[in-house]
Amino acid sequence: MNTLDRQNRISNAFKKIHETIFYKIKGFEKSSKILDDVWEKKDLGQGNSIVIDDGNFFDKAGINFSCISGKSLPKSSVGNKSKSMGLPFFASGVSVVFHPKNPYIPTSHLNVRYFCTYKEDKVFEEWFGGGFDLTPYILNEEDCKKWHEGAEDACKLISANFYEKAKKNCDEYFFIPHRKEHRGIGGIFYEKQEFNHIEEGLHFSDKVSEQFIENYIKIINKHKNTKYTEEEKKFQRFRRGRYVEFNLTYDRGTLFGLQSGGRIESILMSLPNKVEWHYKFDEKLSTEQQKLYDVLKTPRDWVDVI
Amino acid sequence: MNTLDRQNRISNAFKKIHETIFYKIKGFEKSSKILDDVWEKKDLGQGNSIVIDDGNFFDKAGINFSCISGKSLPKSSVGNKSKSMGLPFFASGVSVVFHPKNPYIPTSHLNVRYFCTYKEDKVFEEWFGGGFDLTPYILNEEDCKKWHEGAEDACKLISANFYEKAKKNCDEYFFIPHRKEHRGIGGIFYEKQEFNHIEEGLHFSDKVSEQFIENYIKIINKHKNTKYTEEEKKFQRFRRGRYVEFNLTYDRGTLFGLQSGGRIESILMSLPNKVEWHYKFDEKLSTEQQKLYDVLKTPRDWVDVI
Repeated sequence: MNTLDRQNRISNAFKKIHETIFYKIKGFEKSSKILDDVWEKKDLGQGNSIVIDDGNFFDKAGINFSCISGKSLPKSSVGNKSKSMGLPFFASGVSVVFHPKNPYIPTSHLNVRYFCTYKEDKVFEEWFGGGFDLTPYILNEEDCKKWHEGAEDACKLISANFYEKAKKNCDEYFFIPHRKEHRGIGGIFYEKQEFNHIEEGLHFSDKVSEQFIENYIKIINKHKNTKYTEEEKKFQRFRRGRYVEFNLTYDRGTLFGLQSGGRIESILMSLPNKVEWHYKFDEKLSTEQQKLYDVLKTPRDWVDVI
Repeated sequence: MNTLDRQNRISNAFKKIHETIFYKIKGFEKSSKILDDVWEKKDLGQGNSIVIDDGNFFDKAGINFSCISGKSLPKSSVGNKSKSMGLPFFASGVSVVFHPKNPYIPTSHLNVRYFCTYKEDKVFEEWFGGGFDLTPYILNEEDCKKWHEGAEDACKLISANFYEKAKKNCDEYFFIPHRKEHRGIGGIFYEKQEFNHIEEGLHFSDKVSEQFIENYIKIINKHKNTKYTEEEKKFQRFRRGRYVEFNLTYDRGTLFGLQSGGRIESILMSLPNKVEWHYKFDEKLSTEQQKLYDVLKTPRDWVDVI
């Protein structure tokens, strides 16, 4: 395949993932609350941001497809020791964040992406990255276990011990050092994953996305009718502050977007629509809240417990 | 003076500034809404955080005094080329953020601080830093002009052209690259300012703090009875998102605090209590909002205009 055909094959595969996720989730939201925004940005690329802001079911949701290229790969995406830093690059992927209104349904996040750099008009390095993770506000251990079982299932496509590695990597990545806590209960996260053939990488991205959306929808259906209090809602808005702290201070994906002159509205689409910061708000926790904090402080092996 | 006497002289001077600011502002808030928190943190130091969270007059306010020391100065405070990096240090200062409820009253921020590093038990380098800046949600040009005149007045203590330099430095520092906009309409900001004697530096810190609080109180009194709409309030919460984006992504003061194992609650006290992010919310602006965006995009010379 020539360069253009290859880029098209890849971006079409991610477009398909984008479409599938939207198709599976859209029934939960009132259609008038869904904004379908196809965009193009000069010297960057194109994309499709599907956004829900203050919907009936979601406080905020973003399902973003993008396909971009640039003259020089920024260090935030590869680290500054990479041979690929500064080379022309092509990237395509899907990035999803769901912030449902009901605090009994966790926030969830998925990213699947392909990256390559070019040298003398040939592909120099190429890799896939991605993963998914879950950020509960009220802990439900069964949800966490099933979430991780789904993750493990997807990982079998690569190897028997890939889940273990990607789970650990996820726990390490989604960590807020200044709070000494993790963003949520994790999932999987992999970077610079190489495959013998792009079709294998795309198939894996497919599988990861499928496990993400199937298991998330199960969680939604389980809790969507659970009544919640204003106090639980306030605690959710407070905890979403930690989500913002992580994304703006540590997330390499966000920093890559900001450094590569990305489309700000799409990058920061992950930020919840309403967030609160309060002084010492979590100094005294209820028993339920303490259970959540325990697993945020110390990641658990969800697959072998309960 | 020996090291301890010198540290005491400095921290007492900043304590006095802290006290004065609190004394002058406290009448605006219901006393039951004011939390006066004296703290001590092992291997760090001590401080006094006065906090208002969801008060009657302030959405959030923080008046913080601290006096800390450490074994190794982190690079965020001095840059990684400084001779002082990695040396034992002592620092004391006052940091103030006011987020009033009324969107006609801007958010304001002050910081005055002293830093020194030690080598072989002697002061190796020492300097003062600080400044103040204003973040309006509804632009009032007269306020901005008077704010900058106050800043200019304080700067005369150093030299005739110090204001010009510190104003430019403030515009450059409080800039959000990914938004291509400044955090507010500026003020002054100075780093690594050296004096022949610490008394001169403390006197200048005094003068800066005085101009800050006197001029801010004038702005408060001018607008405190202005009626506002829910729409204006929503716009204020939205713009406060930019405040959070700056503080968590770019502010060296915040990053220094996070890196030096600072007291998180005091460092992140600057974050507003309620913040909103909305997709493309500011794509269409009213005439009034456009006026604000114009000065946020392109800093103005406030002292010589109007």
